[in-house]
This record gives sequence, C-alpha cells and structure tokens, in this order.
Amino acid sequence: MLSVHLESGRVDVRDIPQPTRPAGFALIRLLCAGICNTDLELQRGYYGFAGTPGHEFVGEVVEADSGDWVGRRVVGEINLACGTCAVCAAGMGRHCPTRTVLGIIRHPGAFQEFFTLPECNLRAVPDSVSTEHAVFTEPLAAACEILEQVAIPPGAPVAVLGDGKLGLLIAQALLAHGCGVVHFGRHAKKLLISERAGARVEIAPALPPAAFDWVVDATGSASGLDDAIRMTRPRGTVIMKSTVHGPVSFDAAAAIVKEISLVGSRCGRFEPALELLEAGRIDVESMISGRMPLSRAPEAFDRANERGVLKVLLKP
Amino acid sequence: MLSVHLESGRVDVRDIPQPTRPAGFALIRLLCAGICNTDLELQRGYYGFAGTPGHEFVGEVVEADSGDWVGRRVVGEINLACGTCAVCAAGMGRHCPTRTVLGIIRHPGAFQEFFTLPECNLRAVPDSVSTEHAVFTEPLAAACEILEQVAIPPGAPVAVLGDGKLGLLIAQALLAHGCGVVHFGRHAKKLLISERAGARVEIAPALPPAAFDWVVDATGSASGLDDAIRMTRPRGTVIMKSTVHGPVSFDAAAAIVKEISLVGSRCGRFEPALELLEAGRIDVESMISGRMPLSRAPEAFDRANERGVLKVLLKP
Repeated sequence: MLSVHLESGRVDVRDIPQPTRPAGFALIRLLCAGICNTDLELQRGYYGFAGTPGHEFVGEVVEADSGDWVGRRVVGEINLACGTCAVCAAGMGRHCPTRTVLGIIRHPGAFQEFFTLPECNLRAVPDSVSTEHAVFTEPLAAACEILEQVAIPPGAPVAVLGDGKLGLLIAQALLAHGCGVVHFGRHAKKLLISERAGARVEIAPALPPAAFDWVVDATGSASGLDDAIRMTRPRGTVIMKSTVHGPVSFDAAAAIVKEISLVGSRCGRFEPALELLEAGRIDVESMISGRMPLSRAPEAFDRANERGVLKVLLKP
Repeated sequence: MLSVHLESGRVDVRDIPQPTRPAGFALIRLLCAGICNTDLELQRGYYGFAGTPGHEFVGEVVEADSGDWVGRRVVGEINLACGTCAVCAAGMGRHCPTRTVLGIIRHPGAFQEFFTLPECNLRAVPDSVSTEHAVFTEPLAAACEILEQVAIPPGAPVAVLGDGKLGLLIAQALLAHGCGVVHFGRHAKKLLISERAGARVEIAPALPPAAFDWVVDATGSASGLDDAIRMTRPRGTVIMKSTVHGPVSFDAAAAIVKEISLVGSRCGRFEPALELLEAGRIDVESMISGRMPLSRAPEAFDRANERGVLKVLLKP
C-alpha cells in the first residue's frame, strides 16, 4: 500500500505492507486526510519525528473486534491512552504520560492507505457531514477545547490573534458559542471567512493595549504571546494555542503585574466539533486550498507550506 | 528630615524638607520599614527608578482630614488608584492604569521620616501585632493574593519553589489555609521556618516531574518558571510570583501540551494578612535578619543583598 514517510525534513511516498490489526484496534482505510501545521512542524524537526505523519483523517473501518464499526465512516481521537494510569482514571486520557499519538508520537499516522487506531478512539461521522468537511473534526475539537477550559461569558468580546487554519476555526467556534470575536490577522482573504461568520476583523492593525479580558494567541509565532499579554486587561486571560518549537521569550513581569492568566490549550473532545459541523455552523469549505493524491504528498507538503494557503487535503 | 534616595543603583541619605499633605492624604511618621526584593530590583535598574524607595512600612498618622486616624498605628496599601476609571469602578484599584505606587512608581516611598498616603489606603494595625511584625503585612498580603486568585482545595498538596522572603510567607499562608505544602529551596536555615510551620521541606533536591497540581514559583529567578512547569501535572496550575527584570525564556510548548495555566500574581488585599498576623499564624520574627537606622540605609541595602539574609528593617 502507499504510505507517506517523513524523515529529516524529507517527505517521500513508499510502498509498504498493509498493517496488521492488534486486538481492540480497528483497521481503517483512508478516505481523506488533512495536512496540519503540526505536520509542517514535524517536517521542520519538531519531536525529532521519523515515520508516517497524519492525524487529521476520515476513514472507513475495514476490520474491528466489534462488527458494528465495520463499513462505517469514522474520525478518531489521536491520543492513544493506556487507560489504566492515574491520569487516565481521572478522565484525562489525552494527557496519559505513556500515550502514543497518531502520526506524531510512536504510532504510524493517517497519511497512508491503511492504518490502525483503538476502537475506543473512533467517532462515527454523521451522514450529513461530507468526508472533506469531517477532516476538520480534529482541529475544530482543538478550537472547542478553549470553551471547556475557560468560562467565557456569552457575548463577551474575545480577541483572536492569527488568521491561520487554527485561528479561523477558533474564531468560528467562539462565534458559535456567542462570543463577540475581533479577529486580528494579516490576510484579508483569510479573514473574510471569519468576517462572513460574524467576526469583526482587523487586518495588520496596531494592536490595542489592555483592550480585552479574553485573548487567544493562535499566531503560531514566538512573538504572539507578548502581543496577547499586551492586549489583555488586568486579571484577564490569554489562551495559548501557538505551539512554537523551542524556547519562547516573553515579558513575564507584564503578566505578573497585570495578574494575567495564561492558559495552555491543546487537543479537545471530538463531540462538540462534530455537533458544530453537523449543525453547519462552521465554514470549513472555504478553508480548503487544494486536494492531492497520497502519491503526490511531497508536492502537497510544499503547497501547504506556501504563504496564504489554508488546508491541503490528501486522498488515496 | 532624613530621606533615603536611590538613583542609578546608588543609595544615599539626604536631609530634605518634610512633605506637605494634600487633601485626602495622611501625613505619616515612619515607625519601621522593610527592605523588599523589589527595592533591590529597583537598585538594579528595574523601572528606571530615581527617588525615595520603600513600600513595606508601619507608621503613625500625624495629620489627616479625618481626626480618627491621627495618632493611630497604620500600614497602607501601596497602590494609589484614581478611583474613577473603569478599572477602579470594577473594584480593581490595584490595577488602575494611571496609579502611582508608594516607593515604586511616581510616589515617594516610606524610607524617610515622614511621607504621605491617601487615607483610603490606610489600615489600622491591631494592638496585639508588634510594629516589627506588622511591617510584613504588605508582602504577606501578596502571598495571600494567591488564595484570592485560584481555588486551591483544602488539603491539596502545593509545591512552593524558592525559600526567599516571599516564598517563606507564601508557604506559611498556604499552610494556614490548610494546604499540604512541600517547600523546595536551597537554604536549610530558611526552610526551617516553613518546616516548623508544618511544611515538608526539600533542600536543593532533584525536582520531581509532573508531581503537583499546584506549583508556586517564588524563586525570583528566570529559570523558575520552567522548573515549575516541569513539576506540574497536566491541567495543573503554576502561580507566577517571580517578577524577573527583562524577558523570560520558557518552554511554552510544554505548558501548552500539558494544558497548564500560568497565573500572574502580584499585590493583595491587606485584610487577610492582618488577620493572619493577629492570629499569630505566621512566624515573621524568624524572618528578621537585621535592624538599622535610616541613616545607615546604604549599609542596610548591602546587608539585604547578602546571600542568606532575609528581612532587613529600617527605623528612623
């Protein structure tokens, strides 16, 4: 079968044997996958990754212990938890210290024709959600995670910094929650997506100091955190969504003097994301910049790395 | 009158006229003051300070609009808020954007024989609390601020990093709240103070990874934040109490992957601190390393800068 291999920054496509399915796992045939910024970070050396990347996917279950899953269209939670440690027992399997992570940490990813995932990680895709749209479930879940971590009052103004893929999903998820989103970015074309969804947009503006109680840093840049802290009112909250490779330098004294809370935020539950997609509340169609077959994965990665490009989809 | 002057890192003592009291202010005669780490930071260039430092004090009111205050022994909140802006109206006067701060920002400090402070900033010192002990009200209020910002469950284990003055007050305030404090530091003699108060102490240990849901960084060092993040469990909380001059470099990705909250914490209300002192719950006596007259302030600053020294008191 075709399988994408990433090592030392180089993407190639290989022909390897189909994986065998361990007990408790489903064997999944890829229908569509998405290239995420994390994949591009892996390409740049993040986690010293070598293997098959890919964690945003929709697939069809080919084999499983439970016959109910076979033939169904699924997405899957990417963290493979042990299920037995104290962290898992506390309901935080996504933080299991011995977890593997699909296409990121010691579990082969979804950029190949067939791959495996524990059955307990699977979620059925509602019939009304197209396969291409359901590929956005995982990053949209990461956007929705914000609302599970902090209690933003309905109607509260929230600043979202960064108009990349994650920033656009965050802006839309917050709008669906009833927040008043002001979306700060650099690309008029991208910001149009959140503007159509109801955000006020600001293109490459001077950032207003101490203007928001809630600020989300989704810039993906090391300077985003200081910008976010500067824009936050005393006792306000910055949600950190920019996983930047290497140490980040910031003005800690400013955060302390203003008594700001900085909340790290990563993956989320899939259920709220699937509900938003089923309800048609998130414009993901406008976020698709291209579609390519797995066999052209190197070219797809190049395309995803281009400035102004949003989601590039891979299909078998 | 004698007045300490700090400029370009140099401390000297001057003879200047007694200040005049504006309406709404009290004229205060100094009884005792404490040298704080912030004063030592001002000496190193923090805030580009030039003037009379000093914000930890006990004084006697000499003149005031309200006759009730005259003759009373007082401490005073150090932030002079405008009282009319939106931040003040929201009850956050300590964050007023146009505030001055006693001995720190554009308001002459307490290291002089007489100084002024708004009457609304004054708090009476209970008779049972000695003047030397009441000098600790301001830093103890900063320690208590933690408990007003985050809801630490009673009995929860909390790691406190750093056995300086603030770390010792934080450990004791948390113990008085019922937390199970593990105090990490480098000085056996200092840690004895929190050990006697009920803390488990660890002297220059290997810091245990992901071992606490609550970690307070009071190291005063730029590396304290990363240590605190490393020791915190997924979804745990780090309270940032180390105001370090200049940019701080940290592993933001670790905080994001573990979804840790970093809570900036500064000044607090005086009432809880005065209650703890009145109840005799905090051993501040053991934290006094020396007493000197204002006239020997340069020597007192030198002493306060020595390794192993805790609070140095200044008296008129």
